[in-house]
Formats: sequence, structure tokens, C-alpha cells
Amino acid sequence: EDYDGPPVVGDYLTALPHLKPLDYEGNRTHHVRLDTFAQEVEVAPGYSFTAWTYGGSVPGPTLHVREGDRVVFTMKNRSDEEVVVTKPIRGGAPYFAQLQQNPYQKNAPAISPVPHSMDFHSGTVAADDKWRTIAPGESIEFEWVANYPGVYMYHCGTPSVLMHTAMGQYGAVVVSPREGFPTDDKVDHEFVIVQSEFYLTEDGDGYRYDHQAALDRNPSHVTFNGHVNALNATPLRAKAGDRVRLYLLNAGPSDTSSFHVIGAIFDRVWYEGNVENEWRGMQTVLLGASNSAVMEFIVPEPGAYKLVDHEFADAERGAVGTLIAEPR
Amino acid sequence: EDYDGPPVVGDYLTALPHLKPLDYEGNRTHHVRLDTFAQEVEVAPGYSFTAWTYGGSVPGPTLHVREGDRVVFTMKNRSDEEVVVTKPIRGGAPYFAQLQQNPYQKNAPAISPVPHSMDFHSGTVAADDKWRTIAPGESIEFEWVANYPGVYMYHCGTPSVLMHTAMGQYGAVVVSPREGFPTDDKVDHEFVIVQSEFYLTEDGDGYRYDHQAALDRNPSHVTFNGHVNALNATPLRAKAGDRVRLYLLNAGPSDTSSFHVIGAIFDRVWYEGNVENEWRGMQTVLLGASNSAVMEFIVPEPGAYKLVDHEFADAERGAVGTLIAEPR
Amino acid sequence: EDYDGPPVVGDYLTALPHLKPLDYEGNRTHHVRLDTFAQEVEVAPGYSFTAWTYGGSVPGPTLHVREGDRVVFTMKNRSDEEVVVTKPIRGGAPYFAQLQQNPYQKNAPAISPVPHSMDFHSGTVAADDKWRTIAPGESIEFEWVANYPGVYMYHCGTPSVLMHTAMGQYGAVVVSPREGFPTDDKVDHEFVIVQSEFYLTEDGDGYRYDHQAALDRNPSHVTFNGHVNALNATPLRAKAGDRVRLYLLNAGPSDTSSFHVIGAIFDRVWYEGNVENEWRGMQTVLLGASNSAVMEFIVPEPGAYKLVDHEFADAERGAVGTLIAEPR
Ligand SMILES: [Cu+2]
Ligand SMILES: [Cu+2]
Ligand SMILES: [Cu+2]
Ligand SMILES: [Cu+2]
Ligand SMILES: [Cu+2]
Ligand SMILES: [Cu+2]
Ligand code: NA
Ligand code: NA
Ligand code: NA
Ligand code: NA
Ligand code: NA
Ligand code: NA
Ligand SMILES: [Zn+2]
Ligand SMILES: [Zn+2]
Ligand SMILES: [Zn+2]
Ligand SMILES: [Zn+2]
Ligand SMILES: [Zn+2]
Ligand SMILES: [Zn+2]
Ligand SMILES: [Zn+2]
Ligand SMILES: [Zn+2]
Ligand SMILES: [Zn+2]
Repeated sequence: EDYDGPPVVGDYLTALPHLKPLDYEGNRTHHVRLDTFAQEVEVAPGYSFTAWTYGGSVPGPTLHVREGDRVVFTMKNRSDEEVVVTKPIRGGAPYFAQLQQNPYQKNAPAISPVPHSMDFHSGTVAADDKWRTIAPGESIEFEWVANYPGVYMYHCGTPSVLMHTAMGQYGAVVVSPREGFPTDDKVDHEFVIVQSEFYLTEDGDGYRYDHQAALDRNPSHVTFNGHVNALNATPLRAKAGDRVRLYLLNAGPSDTSSFHVIGAIFDRVWYEGNVENEWRGMQTVLLGASNSAVMEFIVPEPGAYKLVDHEFADAERGAVGTLIAEPR
Repeated sequence: EDYDGPPVVGDYLTALPHLKPLDYEGNRTHHVRLDTFAQEVEVAPGYSFTAWTYGGSVPGPTLHVREGDRVVFTMKNRSDEEVVVTKPIRGGAPYFAQLQQNPYQKNAPAISPVPHSMDFHSGTVAADDKWRTIAPGESIEFEWVANYPGVYMYHCGTPSVLMHTAMGQYGAVVVSPREGFPTDDKVDHEFVIVQSEFYLTEDGDGYRYDHQAALDRNPSHVTFNGHVNALNATPLRAKAGDRVRLYLLNAGPSDTSSFHVIGAIFDRVWYEGNVENEWRGMQTVLLGASNSAVMEFIVPEPGAYKLVDHEFADAERGAVGTLIAEPR
Repeated sequence: EDYDGPPVVGDYLTALPHLKPLDYEGNRTHHVRLDTFAQEVEVAPGYSFTAWTYGGSVPGPTLHVREGDRVVFTMKNRSDEEVVVTKPIRGGAPYFAQLQQNPYQKNAPAISPVPHSMDFHSGTVAADDKWRTIAPGESIEFEWVANYPGVYMYHCGTPSVLMHTAMGQYGAVVVSPREGFPTDDKVDHEFVIVQSEFYLTEDGDGYRYDHQAALDRNPSHVTFNGHVNALNATPLRAKAGDRVRLYLLNAGPSDTSSFHVIGAIFDRVWYEGNVENEWRGMQTVLLGASNSAVMEFIVPEPGAYKLVDHEFADAERGAVGTLIAEPR
């Protein structure tokens, strides 16, 4: 494909923790582009590496659709190009403007020509066809329908899948249920959080992915939204008394998450984001690798609320965020 | 016991991934024999070790019964005998013929005289009595009733239990609910999958179990049905549009499974195989050690569907399988 | 605060595995004190270390309240004092008499002056205010209301939280549902179990906490109720035919628990202890770090029933207990 336009296109593609509201009725066909290319990204202060990305960030953009919507998807493998995402991009998704506001994002173009692919957990298709691998310079186009509501992982499925995901190729798709959640009218804020591990080792005066550490499940960092400070430098914000909804995806690639908000109890939890899988009154939500949940809590009073993977070895490695609640 | 007949006896005992349909009405008493003895087995190309087995394979045979059925169980500890399972066995269970069709099975008799026992998670009994340890040459007989539907683990409970299970002594019992599952009429294919870890280390020019690696949760291999190629050399087969039901047991001995089918979403999941524990629309099912699930998905189109533990460090160590879907 | 009275005060504070029945109607305000101080504790025969404790044991006392109750809580940081808990204490909670009956408890006073805090998962509050850190010699008082039923963790939230919890600062709060559980009339015995990991390394002729081992998720011991023999030296006791209810908290700090009772199947499980999250017929219950469950089983016959984390690497490290069932 001879394309050098915006690498992320689509009205419902946002940067974490944002979710674009579905401002349309009924079903819709979304034309979505998400190119893949290398990028220098920072995971923690002083820890940068050349990541393989979708759209230039790790995790990639979040796509929001409604159950029953159709997605016409295009991806170009631009891993052999220097792609800049830190300047305003005409015709691109809302994602770019949001990404550029994140103070912890220090993305810079990089070249790392590698075959890649795209696997949307939200689609039900023959993976050997739709999710097939394409070489640098090639493009792929395919369609899928959001048959089931939920919070889904997308990621590169090219072997070694452990390597391609740990290198940064993953993100979230939120498929909102056709009839909504029973609390939709009461929710004041909604945020998307993607937990993931990084496996970095020193390499000259920088860092690179360490495959043996990934095989050994020995992460150097565990983060929310790709950086140990992502939800701290720019905390989530609400007011006392608000009902806050979190869309949480545990992208792994290998570890579980025992997600907890310090000072809060989840009033409602929908396992995998499916409105039929409801739990009540949870202190902690356990998710496997590529599991997800929609979780709501009511902010009890003004203050600072920490979000953690309560597997404290992982919190210690960076899986901590903050929600600041102002007085009502 | 003076017995040298078939080491596996019973009409409802099959080799993985097969499940014998319950072709009888109401309840029944099953007379089941499952002898325990050593066997050389292969876990991955080039990786063989002397395993402790039930019936000669790792995992052992799958038993299928109905909720309310009674099982009269006999086991002889034949770990001091060379028992051959790769030749036709008269009067034995359907298990043998199926086992012999598996191209990745290269079983060979071995001697490793050790005390063993049998613990059926499907039975509710005093374990210090029924699940007691017997010496080589001894036999045990006991009964249990399938009081609860589900997909259950059986395994050796002799200390070190970590060692006895990691050496290969485990398998699955499927207890189908008395009134069935609501989708029984719609299911086109059903398969049984047992996930487990192996902890092998070099030993001369072969391999042996490494207890320290097992203690450290550092597996050399993670497999579906006992071999990294078990569900690849002989893939599961269905047609586009089929509803496929999987009975999945995560036998551990220590790790979780985040089970996913690439290209599919589980339409229905019954946690632990109990029809009352229903989830809908799951991308991934998280199971603890000795947890299980019945999971169904509809095959969207012809193609190849990969089954994985989405904890990708484990997929990389072998937890991958394939389902091939032909056109309708 | 100028206080040197009993370090644990409150009528509904007991030592594991005891739970004080709620012998009052409707709601109540509980005045609870739980001081924090160092103590030499034993985790396994020969393995003692200077722990940071609430009330002198690891895990600390269990608090029982009803949904809707108010807790007025006081804690003094007495980590700079030698506090004795092995002698009768006038005006103290029932906890002390129970603790002193445990043969595996060899607690002895120790001094380790460190800032600490208290985080009750059962409360919904601004954590930066209520759960704030206090220096040795200081006291804190705050209130919370038990808005949601469940089995909750409490723990020190002072950084490094991994260190403060792994050093011993955690315990359980049981918030019984306002309307009870549907089986309340049928339950014969109830017990509280807290699972947790220890990360000990040799230090002179004793042991101390090993932070690197904790970061690496490499525990030296995994226990029920703080000692590998806690539920063995003094087994749980019931009669054949009894319905036994377990309140299980997995305190971590990092690992999951795949909880199983050998010889039994859980008839009912309420995830996180919330009566609305019901599962039936479970062989094994998977819990994340700071997850919990209420689980019931019917004891099938007289005998000895082992409780295990069926992640057998953890059982091998100590996560084993016993329930003895006498004839009816
Ligand atoms: Cu890739
Ligand atoms: Cu906590
Ligand atoms: Cu054995
Ligand atoms: Cu995937
Ligand atoms: Cu502390
Ligand atoms: Cu077991
Ligand atoms: Na984690
Ligand atoms: Na909390
Ligand atoms: Na059992
Ligand atoms: Na696994
Ligand atoms: Na999928
Ligand atoms: Na554990
Ligand atoms: Zn936003
Ligand atoms: Zn607000
Ligand atoms: Zn984790
Ligand atoms: Zn078959
Ligand atoms: Zn078919
Ligand atoms: Zn796993
Ligand atoms: Zn008691
Ligand atoms: Zn009793
Ligand atoms: Zn565990």
C-alpha cells in the first residue's frame, strides 16, 4: 500500500485512559486504521526502549464500538519507516491530540523492520486468514463484527507472540452492550486502564527487551497504561460522590492482575465487560492474561485513591495509579 | 492382588481429547480399573522421561459419568512391572485403541517401584481412608458417588504430591449434569483438554523430573494433553458454524491457565463444569490449579483456530493447540 | 497517645481460626483497638523472625461485624515498645486467650521502630487521610462503616507495602450480610483461614525478611494462619454430616491461592464473601492477592480432610491444614 497519511484514523480511537462516548444511535460501520511501526517509548523514568507499537504508543489506541457494529480495518506495517506521532496530525484520530498531552510520553520515531499482524479478541474470524502476518511495507484490510459486548485485547499474533506483545503491540477494544449497563445513567466518569508487564534489560546506555526474562516471568516493570507514572503524573479525576467506571484490560503478556482501589469497594463488576457476568461488592478483581472487567465504585469523600495490582510484587514494579477526588 | 489383565477397564474411559457419550438413561454403577505404573513418555520432540502414570499415558484416561452415578474403583500399583499399552489389549477400555492412534505417543514400559494412591476430586469421601497410599504390588478398591456435576481432576495424593503429580499422575473425570446443559441439543463436537506443566532437566542423554524447578514454578514445558504437539499433530476438527464444547481441566501442578481460542469468543462458560456457574461472552477463561470449565464457541468460518494459554510465557513453552474447521 | 493498656480491645476480635458470633440484633458501633508492634514469631519449626504485627500475631486478629455496623478504630504504633501478648491481659479482646492456646505460637516481644498505617479493605474512605502513616509512639483514630458484606483484608499501607505486608501486617475482617446467608441455619461450624506467603532468609543464626525474594515472588513458606502447622497442630474439628463454613482470605502479598479440601466439594461458594456472588459445586476456588471467599462443604464421613493450596509448589512450602471429622 502506498500510504503515508495519519497512522491512526477513526473517530472512536482515543489515547488511554480516554474512551470516546458513542454519540450515535443503533449500529454503525467504523472505518479504522491502525498502522504498526517502531517507536522509542519510556516505561519508567530513565527506562526507554525501542518498542513495536500500534499507532505509536504502548499500549496502542483504544477503540470504542457498540455491540453489533461492523469494523472495516486497515493496517500498514510501517516498521521500516520513521513515523512521528508527537506533532499535530491532520485527519488523524482524537488519539493524537490526547497522546500529546501526556507529560510522561516521550515518544520518538524508530526503525525496526519486522513482520507483524493484528488479532482482535473482539472479532470472531478465521485467524489464519484475517490475523495473518504482513511484511514491512505491506498492508492488510479485513472486517469483523462486534458480536459480543466486552472489553477486549488486541495484539500482534506473529511468533514469538510472547515477544511481539512484550515489545508493545497491544491495546483495548471496548464493545458496549447494545442495551447498555444498568448503571449507565448514574456513571459520572469512565476511564480505560490497560495493565501490562515489561521485560527490559540494559543494552549499552539504553534498554531492550529481554526474552529470557519474559520466558521466566521476571518483569522489570508492571504498569498501568504503559508507564509507571501514567496514572500518577496525570491522575484520574472525579468528585466525591461520583460513580466511577473503569474498563480494565490485563494485557499480560503473562501475569495475572489482582486489581484493587485503595479506599474503595467495587459496587458492580462485570467480568470480561459482559453485562451478564455481574459481581457485587468486590474488594479485588482477579484477571488472567487477556482477561478484563468493567468495574464501578462510588468515591466516598475527597482525597487521593491509589489503584494497584494488589499482587504487591507487581505494585512495587510500577502497577500503581492515582485517582484524585475533589469536593463535590 | 494377583492381576495382570488390562490396566484400564471400563466402557467410559477414553484417551484425550475423546469423551465417551453417556448412552444410557438414568443412573448407573461403573466398574472402573485404572492401574498405576511407570512409562517412558514424550512431552516434546526429543524430550522423553520416565513418568509415573495412570494407565500408561500422561495425562491418564478420561472417565465420563452422570451426576448420581456410582463408581466402583480398583487400582493396582504395578510400578514394579513392565506394562505395555501400545499393543491391542483385549477386554480393555476404549482408551487403548485411541491412545494407539496418537502419532505423538511413543510410550514404552518402564519400572519405577514407588508407593502411590488415587484422589478423585469428583468423590466426597474421607481421603485418609479411600485415597490411601499402596505399595508396589498392592491393590485398592473403593467406591464413590458423583454427587456434583463438573469437570474434575484425579491425581496421586502421595507425598510429595508436587512430585507425584508433576511425574504424570493425573487425569480428568467429567460428571455430566443430571438434567444436562441447556445447549446439549446444539453441540456438534466435544473435546476434553487437560493443561499441565512439566519440569524436566537433562539427565545423561535423557531427561528426568527436576523437583527444584517444580518448587520454583519454573516449567520446562506447558502442554495441552501431555505433549506440545498433542493438539497439533492431530488437531481438533469441526465445521464452520459448529458449536464446539471444550471440557478443560487445568491440572497444574502449580500454574494458572488463561485459556483462549484465537479467533473465537466463548459463547457460554460453565465454571468448574457446573451448569449453575454460567458466564457469557468470554475472550479468556482463567483457571487455578485443579480448576476447570466447560466452554462453548461457535466456529465462525473455515480456517485454523489456535488454542492457547494466553499467559504467553506458557504458550511459548508449549501450551498451544489447533482446531481445524472445514467448510460446512 | 499515652497508652499502655491491652493492645487489642473489642468484643468481636478473635484469634484465627475463630470467629465471634454476632450476638446482637441490628446494627452496632464497635470500638476497636489494634496496636501495631514488633514480635518474634515462628512460621515453621525452626523458622522465627522479627515480624511487624497487629496485636502480636501474624496474621493479626479477626474482626467480625455486620453489614451496616460502624467501627470506631484506634491504633497506636508501639513498634518502639516491648509488648507482651503471651500472658493473660485484663480488658483485652477474646483474641488473647485464644492466641495463648495455640501450641505453635511462640511469640516474644521485640523492638523495631518503624512508621506504620492501617488500611481496612472493608471501609470506603479517603485513604490518604484515614490510612495515613504514623510514627512510633503516635496514635490514630478514625471511623468507617461496613457498607458491603464480605471477607476483607486489612494491612499496613506504608511504603514499601510489599515489605510491610510481607513482614506480617495483615489480617481479616468479616462483614456478615445484613440478611445473612441462605444456609445460616444449617451451618455447624465456621472457621477463618488466612493464606499468606513468607520470604525468609538466613541471618546469623536466625531469619529475616528477604525483599529481593519477595520482589521475585520466591517465597520460603506459604501458610494457612501464619504457621505451617497452625491448622495441623490444632486441626479444625467437625462431625461427619456437618456443614462446615470457611471464611478464606488470601492475603498474598503476591501469590494466588487455588484452595481445595481433599475429599470434599464446595457445595456453595460466595466470591469475596458477598452473598450475591454465588457459585455451586466447586472442587477448587481461585483467589487473587487480597481476594476472599466464603465456602461451605458437607463432611461426608469420619476421617481426616486436608486443606491445601492446590498450587502444589505452595502446598509443598507449607500451605496445608487438616480438618478432623469424628463420627456423628
Ligand atoms: Cu508483531
Ligand atoms: Cu490493600
Ligand atoms: Cu504417586
Ligand atoms: Cu490473543
Ligand atoms: Cu507497616
Ligand atoms: Cu487434589
Ligand atoms: Na500483575
Ligand atoms: Na479499600
Ligand atoms: Na476432593
Ligand atoms: Na499456564
Ligand atoms: Na479471539
Ligand atoms: Na499460593
Ligand atoms: Zn477522556
Ligand atoms: Zn465528577
Ligand atoms: Zn500480578
Ligand atoms: Zn472421540
Ligand atoms: Zn462438525
Ligand atoms: Zn499459565
Ligand atoms: Zn472459635
Ligand atoms: Zn459438628
Ligand atoms: Zn498459590
